[in-house]
Amino acid sequence: MKKQQSTSALSNAAGTPPQDNVSATSSQRIRQLRKKTPEAQQLAEQIIAGNKTALSRGITFIESQQAKHQYIAAQLIEYCLPKANKSIRIGITGVPGVGKSTFIEAFGNLLITQDKKVAVLAVDPTSSVTKGSILGDKTRMETLVKEQDAFIRPSASGETLGGVARKTRESIILCEAAGFDHILIETVGVGQSETAVHSMTDFFLLLKLAGAGDELQGIKRGIIEMADAIIINKADGDNQKKAAQAKSEFQRALHLYPTKNTGWTPQVALCSALENTGIDNVYELILSYLDLTKENGYFEQKRRDQNKFWLLQTIEEHLKRNFYQHPDIKKELPLQLQLIEEGKTTPFVAATFLLKLKDN
Amino acid sequence: MKKQQSTSALSNAAGTPPQDNVSATSSQRIRQLRKKTPEAQQLAEQIIAGNKTALSRGITFIESQQAKHQYIAAQLIEYCLPKANKSIRIGITGVPGVGKSTFIEAFGNLLITQDKKVAVLAVDPTSSVTKGSILGDKTRMETLVKEQDAFIRPSASGETLGGVARKTRESIILCEAAGFDHILIETVGVGQSETAVHSMTDFFLLLKLAGAGDELQGIKRGIIEMADAIIINKADGDNQKKAAQAKSEFQRALHLYPTKNTGWTPQVALCSALENTGIDNVYELILSYLDLTKENGYFEQKRRDQNKFWLLQTIEEHLKRNFYQHPDIKKELPLQLQLIEEGKTTPFVAATFLLKLKDN
Repeated sequence: MKKQQSTSALSNAAGTPPQDNVSATSSQRIRQLRKKTPEAQQLAEQIIAGNKTALSRGITFIESQQAKHQYIAAQLIEYCLPKANKSIRIGITGVPGVGKSTFIEAFGNLLITQDKKVAVLAVDPTSSVTKGSILGDKTRMETLVKEQDAFIRPSASGETLGGVARKTRESIILCEAAGFDHILIETVGVGQSETAVHSMTDFFLLLKLAGAGDELQGIKRGIIEMADAIIINKADGDNQKKAAQAKSEFQRALHLYPTKNTGWTPQVALCSALENTGIDNVYELILSYLDLTKENGYFEQKRRDQNKFWLLQTIEEHLKRNFYQHPDIKKELPLQLQLIEEGKTTPFVAATFLLKLKDN
Repeated sequence: MKKQQSTSALSNAAGTPPQDNVSATSSQRIRQLRKKTPEAQQLAEQIIAGNKTALSRGITFIESQQAKHQYIAAQLIEYCLPKANKSIRIGITGVPGVGKSTFIEAFGNLLITQDKKVAVLAVDPTSSVTKGSILGDKTRMETLVKEQDAFIRPSASGETLGGVARKTRESIILCEAAGFDHILIETVGVGQSETAVHSMTDFFLLLKLAGAGDELQGIKRGIIEMADAIIINKADGDNQKKAAQAKSEFQRALHLYPTKNTGWTPQVALCSALENTGIDNVYELILSYLDLTKENGYFEQKRRDQNKFWLLQTIEEHLKRNFYQHPDIKKELPLQLQLIEEGKTTPFVAATFLLKLKDN
């Protein structure tokens, strides 16, 4: 922190080149700093060729905590980045029981009949507690999982939200490079993971059931504000009347929220994932959204804003990991927490001690 | 990150002493590392003697961005810590217009008639935008501000929430050392600042109005879950009937939330800060809460948990400040953000570049 070094990566760039060149120089510098390994290059080529086994292995590198693996992951991302960015990223949330897996299965199969390639990822920081509540059981998407043009990846577990979100975002890049043009990102509608998923997707879809209040559905109010569409699932059999009623209620409720700067009015629609009805309508909704926002420039602007957000997130996640993974900190932090528990030190004294420890 | 240094503060402590000694050694080490300045010692003594002008100056040091001032602030906290912790910390939130200032004035005056000393602080990260919407205008508490046993401090502005929260938490310590036994911390019920205030207070009070829906009051659902009491203000004149009705509605609504692990059932009460009615009842509520949670051990446990949370917060806030305040980063970050805006770099390339810059 207090170290002032006379040389820095910047000091080579004396005379401040114009911004375009700064970018080139930055990338060049990073490439020089990071030696390529043949393993990473080969794997990246397989991923870009659309090999799903290679894609799986690549994501495993991204999810690994080992420094050696993270080094390979960083190279993979660099190789894949020029091929990425060419997909539609759709966030899907809803509490357990709302039928997310069935919906994704039906929606994914629809996309595949339209010659699309579908990757399904999950952000589920709680899965370490709930032992993989979402996507954990692949068999719940039994037909989709067998499709050549589908790729389903259960969520990484035992992680902080920041860690899971970063890994999912990096996995998106690999999926896109592998040619998947529709990325579905599932999460459970009960925590802050929605904000993370919202910040990495183009379209955010909230699944609901008819006849259950917000409290019962455990959905936080903020999540409704994020939704580009609310889909009422299980609108079948005896449920149809209730579902239609719920639809008008949500439409009324959405009017209470301010207009989004997308120019898009969030839509409410009915479907039955089980009976495969209304799914095509959901896709049409998404296509209208894309038409609108690609024309008015919001689509690109949102991705740029997300990129800025992710720049800061990536930095902060790195700073924290760098600190907490330091051997001295790993050894001393639990002791300091214990001392706080016993009332023998204070957060300020302990923080100062730990920060000095890492500085030295 | 990759630097492995052969010496660290820990390496002197070979032979790992028992935990009690670790604490002593840690503090000793920190004291050795940080030379005391006579200015800080003198100011700390004045604060501990109850001098409000000194307290104000101390908080100004805490709020300052200058390294020299932060150095003094750190010493003040160290001096004051042994005298702190002996207060009741009450968080107060509610949207603008709900009458927070009038309530704090009435409540503060009640405390003073009971020979208590009251400090009022604010967490308001938005004040840079709204130009100091809360506590900005001290004259709104015209009688309280004149009391010898009251100390009112407007919020620091132009800061991130993390920064404001840290400063408020440190200011609490100074106020407690100065003998203030009731710390009221005000915030506006519209953002994440409630979570910060909740995490530094013993009792969390939500002010509401009768007859306005959640949407109209702009209160996020999560805030209701945090409340230990909901106080319906302006229960006077023509409003009384509506207020009583709102009270039963909130009581019913609170039943939908799971029981808190405090063993405390959140209460709903009516008051009119303007007419000074029901204020004593609010204080009695708080006293019952304290009786209950001090007896069942929750009060102390919550403070210990808060301390652990604040250890991590303090560390992370420091890591970020340390990074973003680095001259090279201050110069290069805006350029990288601009390159992202222009689509000429990606968050990963930019993050890697910036992180390397700081490492070198």
